[in-house]
This record gives sequence, structure tokens and C-alpha cells, in this order.
Amino acid sequence: MNAGRKPTREGGLEAAKSIGAILPPTPLLPVEIAGTRAFVKAENLQPIGAFKIRGGWWRLSSLSEEERAGGVVAVSSGNHAQGVAWAAKRLGIKATIVMPRDAPEVKLANTRALGAEVVLYNRPGEDRDEVAARLIADQGGTLVHAFGDPWVIEGQGSAGVEAQAQLGRQPSRFIVCCGGGGLAAGLALACPDTAIHVVEPAGWDMVGQALATGSIVSAAEDAPRTICDALQPTATKQLNLDVLKERAEPGVTVTDDEVREAQRWAFANLRMVIEPGGAAALAAALAGKVSVDEDTVIMLTGGNADPARFAQTIAAGV
Amino acid sequence: MNAGRKPTREGGLEAAKSIGAILPPTPLLPVEIAGTRAFVKAENLQPIGAFKIRGGWWRLSSLSEEERAGGVVAVSSGNHAQGVAWAAKRLGIKATIVMPRDAPEVKLANTRALGAEVVLYNRPGEDRDEVAARLIADQGGTLVHAFGDPWVIEGQGSAGVEAQAQLGRQPSRFIVCCGGGGLAAGLALACPDTAIHVVEPAGWDMVGQALATGSIVSAAEDAPRTICDALQPTATKQLNLDVLKERAEPGVTVTDDEVREAQRWAFANLRMVIEPGGAAALAAALAGKVSVDEDTVIMLTGGNADPARFAQTIAAGV
Repeated sequence: MNAGRKPTREGGLEAAKSIGAILPPTPLLPVEIAGTRAFVKAENLQPIGAFKIRGGWWRLSSLSEEERAGGVVAVSSGNHAQGVAWAAKRLGIKATIVMPRDAPEVKLANTRALGAEVVLYNRPGEDRDEVAARLIADQGGTLVHAFGDPWVIEGQGSAGVEAQAQLGRQPSRFIVCCGGGGLAAGLALACPDTAIHVVEPAGWDMVGQALATGSIVSAAEDAPRTICDALQPTATKQLNLDVLKERAEPGVTVTDDEVREAQRWAFANLRMVIEPGGAAALAAALAGKVSVDEDTVIMLTGGNADPARFAQTIAAGV
Repeated sequence: MNAGRKPTREGGLEAAKSIGAILPPTPLLPVEIAGTRAFVKAENLQPIGAFKIRGGWWRLSSLSEEERAGGVVAVSSGNHAQGVAWAAKRLGIKATIVMPRDAPEVKLANTRALGAEVVLYNRPGEDRDEVAARLIADQGGTLVHAFGDPWVIEGQGSAGVEAQAQLGRQPSRFIVCCGGGGLAAGLALACPDTAIHVVEPAGWDMVGQALATGSIVSAAEDAPRTICDALQPTATKQLNLDVLKERAEPGVTVTDDEVREAQRWAFANLRMVIEPGGAAALAAALAGKVSVDEDTVIMLTGGNADPARFAQTIAAGV
């Protein structure tokens, strides 16, 4: 059961062991930004193309036999969906995923290809948590929240444990793409001496605002559009804020243009595909909004880019 | 001096040590092709975006003090150029690179950015080896051939030593993108018990034809166009053929469409950018032209894709 459990550093270290036994570490690659060396952690190269495989695996593999038999229900804009579906397939657990109708087609298709049942909702308008709650009331199952879940937070934190081992020393700072704050909180717990810089899309800085005000802030009804489909939570959760308010630096935001520039930079300099939401941290570093040093690790969190939109972004830089 | 030196397995192992001291191993990533697991070796993630950094480093770092002082001259369609320029910059050696006027702009720009002097020639029409010979007659310097050089062959072979260490066992086969045959020959020497499958663009199978006939074959004057700009040698060299005729399987060719399909597959499934010539081996595997097993390593040799053409390829798959 979830109720009352808090994510811990020990949990993150356990998660790293469990995940290290089934997935090879993602590459930690050197980069040069404005003449300074730093590192990127290529979570876009995970089998599902995103770090969410970590939290999905740790949550599902921690379920009791009885919980496994009842199946899981998750809500996700696409990458958590694939992480849960991947883990569910591997563990033989039935997965139902609530996804927004406007999620990138590639994410919907990949989630279905992993064997999960997808239930669509309208964004904005319907509350995805309510849709999930109705499903659970009807058919049972355990909710696997995309970020407000202690196991999910610990699982994501395993990326930090891995990066530190690859670097051979404590990273000075993590620059992290941030939606609900699951990865950021996980890294904060796993690497207690590393500074945490969360980066969010302009107008969707729900974690940055929560850090500034000390309490949870919901997205405005008229929040601007963003190309970062993976970074649009309606609000962070208390579980995440409790960790981050002790550990995170003030939040930073990036514009769509800065994100596209980072996608083009990764294409030309790293030869990697980064989806918009996965490029937010890199965008902040390239724009000089967070400074880097040789012990900085920039998280590239996802690579599930819509082909037509990615092509447009790349062609626009020529 | 080059004259008479033959590339050896021992040279490849030495090269692997030297290269391992300055460059982290490129990722060896699991893939699933038609239901079978196999591996890709992501040489597109090298700092210059291609495996050519290996041969460039091993050749230049093996030069005598006197040779270093005289500078180097290389001929290249783009990736060898960057490999030589990268090594020359690091070792403080003057590099002059003869490149075709129609090389992708990204490769010309990257070579110049690494500090090399670029001399352009017209393809077809001018013989690039003659342009290089004239330069050396005029200004001196050591020729660093793109594939017909024993150190270059040994250096490229270090990718095989690395892949075998990462796999933890002898690969059953390497599927290799092939231009002049430098990488293929290097892998053949470095991993004597691994089958070597060379893959070339249709109409540009100069190595495949040399393997079939036992002697060097030159490209036809009316050879068809290919999008694989990196795989258009006028002919292989005796040094390469001598190794490959003892070791390589019959050659395989791929069409432009098969290459584009492989680029799209890598985009969607690996979240990586592969240039056309770097996708030829993957294209052969995906098209079922070379079968794979769980100990197969497919070489992804380069990721320096022209942005506009890459965008077009990706968008065409939607």
C-alpha cells in the first residue's frame, strides 16, 4: 500500500540495484557547452526511450502477489505509460493506462504495442486522476501515479545513483527536466550532496511556483501551449514538494524556441533524438540559465519525438 | 613509413588500448529485429559522430616526431576528415584534408571547426588521390589514407575489441557498413573468429565485387547515385582485400530506400541519428539480407546527417 509511505535514499539505492540487474546503464556522455565540459545522461536511450522505465519497474516489482493479480492503472501523457506497460509485460501484470487524446501518436502506439490497454481522456476538460479513480472503482487495480508515488520517486532516483557511479564522483549538480517532480525528487534523495536544478516549460512551472510559494500551485486554465507534452502536470504532489523544498534550487523555465534549439543541438552534436520535454534541461544549460561545470550532469529524459514535428524542428534550423 | 607494413591483430589490440585511454567505449545497445535480439555498436555517438576517430588517432599518434612536424594530408568524404582533424588538433599536428565539393555541409563545417585546412575537389572528374599527391609534392607531409593504411585499419578494428569486451564473449558476426573496407578489415583482424558481413550501397559494391572476383574493381563511371555519401570509394585497396578475401562472407548491397527505412527505424526505436552510410548495415539486417542472432553486432558507423535531408527522410515515413 502507498498510504503514508515516504520515499527514501535507501529505497533509491535498492531501486538502483534492482534496475541495474535488468537494464544496462544509459550512457553518460561528455559534452562541451560554451567552452565548459559537462555530461549528459542519455535516458532517451532506454528501451522505452525515457527514464520512466525506472519508476515503472520499481513500483510494479514491489507489488505484492495479491496486488499483481489485480492489475495496475496509470495515468500518463505517454512516457510513464510506456514505463508501466514495459514493466507490466515483463512481470505478467495487466496494465490499463489513462492517456490524453492529444498525446503524440508514437507514445500511444508504443504503449499499446507493449500490451497495455489505453483509455483516452480529453485534455483540458477531463481530470485524468478522476478517470483513473473511476476505473479503479469499477474494475479494481493499483494506481501507479506518474510522480506522486514513493516507489516511482525512488525508481527514478536510480538514474542519479548510476550517473554518480559512471562519473566516479558526486555530481556537482543535476539539471533536470521537470513535470510533476518525480525524477527531481528521486535524484535529490539518491544524491544528497548534489544540487538539484529543475527546468520547466514557461507557463507550466508548477514545481518552480510550488518551491517559491511553499505550497502546491495548480496550472492556470489559460496556461500557454507548450511543445513539451511530457511536462504538463496539473500540479505537483505533496510527496514531491516535501523532498524538493528541502533540496532544490529555485526553478528555471525555458521557452519553446529554446527547447527546439536544444533539440537541434543534440541532433548535430550528440547525434541523438530528444523529444521536446526531454530537451528542457539541455535548453536551460545552452541558454545559460543554469551554469555548468565539469561535474554537472544534464538529464536527457526522453526521445519519443513525433517524427513530423521533429523533422520540422530540424529543418527549421537549416 | 607505410611501405610494406601490414596491419595485424596485435596492432589492433594495441590500438584498442591507446584509444581506450582517451575515449570512453561507445554504447553496445540491445535491439530486437524480427523477433530476434541482437546488438548495435553506436559509433555514431563518438565525439566526431563516426568510428573514423579511431583510425585517425592510431595513425597520427603512431607518427614519428619528424613526421608529426611535417603535418598530414588526408582525403575523405567527411568522416575520416573529422577523425584526422580531431587527432591532429589533439596532437598539435597540421592537417590538410582533401574533400569532395559535394560533401555534406555539416562534414565540411565540422572538419574546419576542428582546425584542419580543407582543399576541395570535384567528384566525379578529379582523382582525389592525385590532388593529395600534388599537395604532398608541393608542401610535404604524410598521407593518411582513409582505408588503405595499416594503422588506420588497426585503429578501426579497436571497435571490435571494444564490442567483444562489452558483450563478454566473441560476437558471432559483425554486420558492417563498407566503403573502402578499412573498418571491415580491422574487425576481421581484431576478432579472428567472428564472421564479417560487408554491406555496401547498390552500385557501389567495390569490396563485394573484389571479394567475388579476387581482384580490385573500380567504380563504374556511370555508377548510380547513392545517398550513402560516406560509402563511395573509387575502389578498395590491396591491403584491405588481402585481409578480407581470407575472412569476409560474400558482400551484400542495400538500396537507398532500405537505408532510409533503417534511418527511420533507428529514429523511432533507438532514438539515434544515423547518417545514410552509417545505416547500411542496419538496413541489411532489417531487410533480412543478413540474418542476425543474439551474438550479432551491427555497426552503426556514423551520425553526421545533413539536417534537411534527414528531416525529409523522417517526415516521409509519417
